Amino acid sequence: MARTRLTPERESELYGAVLDLLREVGYDALTMDAVAGRTHSSKATLYRQWGSKPELVARALRHNKPADVAQIDTGSLRGDFHAMVSIADDCQMERDTALMRGLVHAVHTNPDLHQALRELLIEPELNGLSVFLRRAVDRGEISADQPALKYVTHMLVGAFVARQLVEDRSVDQAFLRDYLDAVVLPALGV
Amino acid sequence: MARTRLTPERESELYGAVLDLLREVGYDALTMDAVAGRTHSSKATLYRQWGSKPELVARALRHNKPADVAQIDTGSLRGDFHAMVSIADDCQMERDTALMRGLVHAVHTNPDLHQALRELLIEPELNGLSVFLRRAVDRGEISADQPALKYVTHMLVGAFVARQLVEDRSVDQAFLRDYLDAVVLPALGV
Repeated sequence: MARTRLTPERESELYGAVLDLLREVGYDALTMDAVAGRTHSSKATLYRQWGSKPELVARALRHNKPADVAQIDTGSLRGDFHAMVSIADDCQMERDTALMRGLVHAVHTNPDLHQALRELLIEPELNGLSVFLRRAVDRGEISADQPALKYVTHMLVGAFVARQLVEDRSVDQAFLRDYLDAVVLPALGV
Repeated sequence: MARTRLTPERESELYGAVLDLLREVGYDALTMDAVAGRTHSSKATLYRQWGSKPELVARALRHNKPADVAQIDTGSLRGDFHAMVSIADDCQMERDTALMRGLVHAVHTNPDLHQALRELLIEPELNGLSVFLRRAVDRGEISADQPALKYVTHMLVGAFVARQLVEDRSVDQAFLRDYLDAVVLPALGV
């Protein structure tokens, strides 16, 4: 795929349109025709650049991530976690929550989308997280055989999903900071 | 509503048919006509007994719960948590996971269903949990101002959802026991 043919500005514009459509109509009703129409591009261009709808959607979501978790390095695990929370502001988190909610269902009925999200979004995020957990182990903040280490993702996912499901609210920075200090760091023995 | 007109066996049979249909076609495509057809009853009976589809589905799900969390009282928090995990066997958990996955989406698009599930399923479950957390506080196992106390649900929801989303597997008893011992109890300082 010759992704180089589009300028970064044009690519960014296309990804923005995909996310807007995703919020408006959901994944199943989002068509390449609609993306082409909204962005004044041809379907041929879209397919040449991205190959398929799942790949286009996954890349749009990845492009939307404000910064790379793997870049964070504050010198302490608590500092790294809190920096991670500060990447997105409350408004972005609310928008992202709405997006993700729509995708949870689509993921279960579209294995190709699940696969694309796994490769382009979930795994890079998990790798970023494991980089700063490994640094905490190297610094001696966490013991290498700490049993909660393999469950950090589970704790974090719980914060997002339960906040919505049980409390009927989106997460925000204050909530996530309190959860990190009350749950994640104590479970890790920090 | 005169729920007394049906025998417990007949009621149980009806709830079973509702859950089967829910697994087969999902909440949105489940109709009172289909329930009536499957159970050889009239739609009038269904509406007289349950009032509405969200109420019928929520009651069927509650009926499906193998036992009441609030009945558990082993004398220690760890014992209570592990007893909670033993209520449903691995096979039931896998079936329940499939059911719940289908409902996550329906809940967001059907506020009446969300309300019925909240009243009939989520709140009784949370109350049961809070009963045995309060006993642990009374016994002195957990300090009353333990900041992780308000996040026990979030930790548990995370175990279920992330297992599916990240690991692509259903939860089972061994996983839940390990998660309780590695995450939930240490976060609570037990």
